Amino acid sequence: MQIVTTIEELRSIVKWWRGEGHSVGLVPTMGYLHEGHKSLIVKAVSENDRVVVSDFVNPTQFGANEDLSTYPRDMERDAALCEAAGADVIFHPSPEEMYLEDNCTFVDMNRLTKGLCGKTRPTHFSGVCTVVFKLFNIVTPDRAYFGQKDAQQLAVIRRMVRDMNFNVRIVGCPIVREADGLAMSSRNAYLNEKERKAALILHKSLVLGEEMLRAGERDAGKVRDVILKNMRTEPLARIDYVELVDAKNLEPVKKIEGPILAATAVYIGKTRLIDNFHYDSEA
Amino acid sequence: MQIVTTIEELRSIVKWWRGEGHSVGLVPTMGYLHEGHKSLIVKAVSENDRVVVSDFVNPTQFGANEDLSTYPRDMERDAALCEAAGADVIFHPSPEEMYLEDNCTFVDMNRLTKGLCGKTRPTHFSGVCTVVFKLFNIVTPDRAYFGQKDAQQLAVIRRMVRDMNFNVRIVGCPIVREADGLAMSSRNAYLNEKERKAALILHKSLVLGEEMLRAGERDAGKVRDVILKNMRTEPLARIDYVELVDAKNLEPVKKIEGPILAATAVYIGKTRLIDNFHYDSEA
Repeated sequence: MQIVTTIEELRSIVKWWRGEGHSVGLVPTMGYLHEGHKSLIVKAVSENDRVVVSDFVNPTQFGANEDLSTYPRDMERDAALCEAAGADVIFHPSPEEMYLEDNCTFVDMNRLTKGLCGKTRPTHFSGVCTVVFKLFNIVTPDRAYFGQKDAQQLAVIRRMVRDMNFNVRIVGCPIVREADGLAMSSRNAYLNEKERKAALILHKSLVLGEEMLRAGERDAGKVRDVILKNMRTEPLARIDYVELVDAKNLEPVKKIEGPILAATAVYIGKTRLIDNFHYDSEA
Repeated sequence: MQIVTTIEELRSIVKWWRGEGHSVGLVPTMGYLHEGHKSLIVKAVSENDRVVVSDFVNPTQFGANEDLSTYPRDMERDAALCEAAGADVIFHPSPEEMYLEDNCTFVDMNRLTKGLCGKTRPTHFSGVCTVVFKLFNIVTPDRAYFGQKDAQQLAVIRRMVRDMNFNVRIVGCPIVREADGLAMSSRNAYLNEKERKAALILHKSLVLGEEMLRAGERDAGKVRDVILKNMRTEPLARIDYVELVDAKNLEPVKKIEGPILAATAVYIGKTRLIDNFHYDSEA
């Protein structure tokens, strides 16, 4: 496995692969990899001849008061995980390699990014779209892999790929959880022992909502209220949002008809965590 | 030569070409082709094994009160010109083929697009970037050809390609003029006889400015004043702007140092015309 830091070198490797007739998979990450990332890499390795994992803490997707400077990093551990999972290349560019000083182009969308996390993080998805766009142009992958934990990100990227005619297949992969149910996230590293316990409230509350849906409840407001009420039993939790939205266009729903996404963002101390589940009343 | 109307068909043609090892050139146009477009196609044919001319009046680059509905069209004549120039495919999609109903993704930039034509046409360059981006993703050309007449468009596209890591070489081609100096444009078709004569004022005034620069004048304000003053002698002309800007970042300059762009937009009756020249004091 190779660690590549320049766009030019990565391009020349991909060109060589293409000359050999190899298919290429891309797993975009911000590093500090966990079992969730690993599941994406393993899936990519099973479906492509060659796999690139990008490992880049993308500054443009952080807001001014967010955790860019403290975001956890551990390149050595990341490299070991990627190698074990079967990746061929880690792409680990500097911010200066990815964004020239007078960089001024961006990708954005005027739907899908306004609600859910977009409300609290109004510039986040433009940063995500822009960097993913750049990575697609650098790697020209056949398939790209994203986790369902970032459900809005996945929906936004699917829409971007469709709207902009990218010839890339987007593969969404299930949330990977700790034994006690907490969705894996690089940001879990921020949590102290008390917060780590409190963080369970996201999954536990969502499960209550999911059980209501499985039992036949079709009033989204009632499901949301139960989730919210349970969240509020945790004194360390400050709720950003709990929403039930259409799984494709991410517009809030009142009645459950067809596929929906139930998503939440909650601050546990200073750490903002997200979790979600999909439910399809017609499946 | 083939006329192709669907993205899927064009993709399959390009895929076949790629399989044969052919290079591909793209000439994006809005149709109603003239000798300026022809020069782009001829250049593309000379530099690539296969050439696609896109012929699409792109709705997203027109403002609400602009001339989308009246923009001149003549597919039959366009096809004859493309065939004569040696193009292999005309891509002529419907607006619905290019933009799905719930399309919501766009590309934009926060510099380069604010001044010059961007002042009067604030959404124009986002529409241009977005459609060019889509065309690049559909055609995946090695080279793409744009006329220098749309100087700001060319600078914006060069920047976009650099910022977004597109693997496409952007080729700018010189302005082609009528015998009397009027820059060729599909919009010249709007002009009546009197307006056609009045339209000469753009080129004539720019030439005066260019002569000053060649004679050694380095005060941009003085050059601009002479151009403006001459423009104002034409009663049918309503000036949108006359600007001398840095050729790369399009910021207004006071002193002429290195490459600059002198650009103008003028309404002749209801028709908005543009023209420009490049000058490099160090060349």
